[in-house]
Amino acid sequence: MSYEVINVAGRPMRLLGSGEVFPRKALVGCQGIKGAYSQQAARKMFPERTEMFFRSFAGVIEAVKSGLVDYGILPIENNSYGSVRGTYRQLLDADVTIVRGERLLIRHQLLVKPGNRFEDITSVRSHEQALGQCGTFVRSVEGKVPVIPVLNTAVAARYVAECGEPGAAAIASPEAAEAYGLEILENRISDSDNNYTRFVCISREPVIYPGASRISMILSTAHRPGALYEILGFFASAGLNLVKLESCPIVGRDFEFMFYTDVEGNAADPRVREVLSNVKKCCSVFRFLGNYSEG
Amino acid sequence: MSYEVINVAGRPMRLLGSGEVFPRKALVGCQGIKGAYSQQAARKMFPERTEMFFRSFAGVIEAVKSGLVDYGILPIENNSYGSVRGTYRQLLDADVTIVRGERLLIRHQLLVKPGNRFEDITSVRSHEQALGQCGTFVRSVEGKVPVIPVLNTAVAARYVAECGEPGAAAIASPEAAEAYGLEILENRISDSDNNYTRFVCISREPVIYPGASRISMILSTAHRPGALYEILGFFASAGLNLVKLESCPIVGRDFEFMFYTDVEGNAADPRVREVLSNVKKCCSVFRFLGNYSEG
Repeated sequence: MSYEVINVAGRPMRLLGSGEVFPRKALVGCQGIKGAYSQQAARKMFPERTEMFFRSFAGVIEAVKSGLVDYGILPIENNSYGSVRGTYRQLLDADVTIVRGERLLIRHQLLVKPGNRFEDITSVRSHEQALGQCGTFVRSVEGKVPVIPVLNTAVAARYVAECGEPGAAAIASPEAAEAYGLEILENRISDSDNNYTRFVCISREPVIYPGASRISMILSTAHRPGALYEILGFFASAGLNLVKLESCPIVGRDFEFMFYTDVEGNAADPRVREVLSNVKKCCSVFRFLGNYSEG
Repeated sequence: MSYEVINVAGRPMRLLGSGEVFPRKALVGCQGIKGAYSQQAARKMFPERTEMFFRSFAGVIEAVKSGLVDYGILPIENNSYGSVRGTYRQLLDADVTIVRGERLLIRHQLLVKPGNRFEDITSVRSHEQALGQCGTFVRSVEGKVPVIPVLNTAVAARYVAECGEPGAAAIASPEAAEAYGLEILENRISDSDNNYTRFVCISREPVIYPGASRISMILSTAHRPGALYEILGFFASAGLNLVKLESCPIVGRDFEFMFYTDVEGNAADPRVREVLSNVKKCCSVFRFLGNYSEG
């Protein structure tokens, strides 16, 4: 593997040569159960892969650190709930690097046991949020059959596969259909496409692949008017565009914040590395999470 | 009611006189079911109140706009999930004003049918997140009795009250205990106190109560490096401290953002109003949500 070691705000990173490409095949750790949307993200990132499922974000990260899996997939932001702070909290202290991002448009599908038709449906299960996102469909069946919220969409699909009710239906992902041997009766029942989750792929190797365009970091500033303003000044004066900025209060310490911050840039450019060094000097906490491209 | 009308970035607001106090008594709309944590927020804001429950955030807002209820209570930020974007999206277009905030430390309690003791427990139900937050307790009972995740904590409490299983237990709020006639067997079973949700109280009257110290707004800037930097410059140069800043991508329009922005200040100060006017001029979207104090 051809690479050059560069120093990104105090962190040695391997900048891979232009011939290096992101792997197609890997053993990948995901959080949740088979058929979860994180499996769909894994599939988009690694066309050929083997998945292992873990109960928690911490479990995925531990598996990456120990080498039990090659990579881990974690949700980092959702357009309904904002940043997944559980993921950020784990990333802050874990010695892993974000090497890839994937923005996944969530397209809910109506799943039934093979051979069933619309008129055979006797109940519909899904996550509460997914039921809300498929309001038009849900209103069309409500009153006729029970509509039952369950913990998550993959659990709904597993229920349809394993329960004794032949007419049960679930609203879930195509991965869930495959995982539990179900049939897709309708493949677009969301009211809008305004529903996505961003996932990141983490590695224990501190690498930057060619074409990386997004830099993610967590930083904390002194609590005084203008502290953040000063930091953004470094980005602005170097022409680095801010693509994410989110304050997260540090509980227990009043009015202290972590900022989840993403800018567009590639650390191969020495000017970008200089900006990051300057920003780091203004921060009480500075954690470079990775420089990667997003699918 | 004594007040002066002031212009806050183009929006006429009633600045209440120093003798005016926040009401103790009101008809209040909450989202969810009886025993939800939003009921606890309502109780802290209004010592004497009547609650009405609505299925959705939109339902609460509609009830406030139509005058069906005096005030509405909405969750706006959670320390696990970040901003509640559903609330922000509704507030962006609704002609209502935030008049009060409340930061609620969530203290989970173990609820049982009256008379039951610890050794009588045959199952434990709660929201998955609450089970995770009470890890020490959950690990102490796991293996002995089933631990079952359900949709939310109030649903778990309702189950304990209404099911046929005498030894069922729930992890939920004291309001849920009261709503469903349950007994609190242990009143602090969370692993840490790092668990809070911020709620806001909305009114259809555009008022600012005396002592207001927080200004909330939603803004959107041009997509160019430094646009946000310029805006923060107005706040910084006036010494207004930023207490929240969160970017939220506008889905469907690549790389355009809404910023959920809170600063410390009182719009009675003409200098503060001047800053807000200047900020508004730099924004493609500027929505002043309210100026209020937080309990």
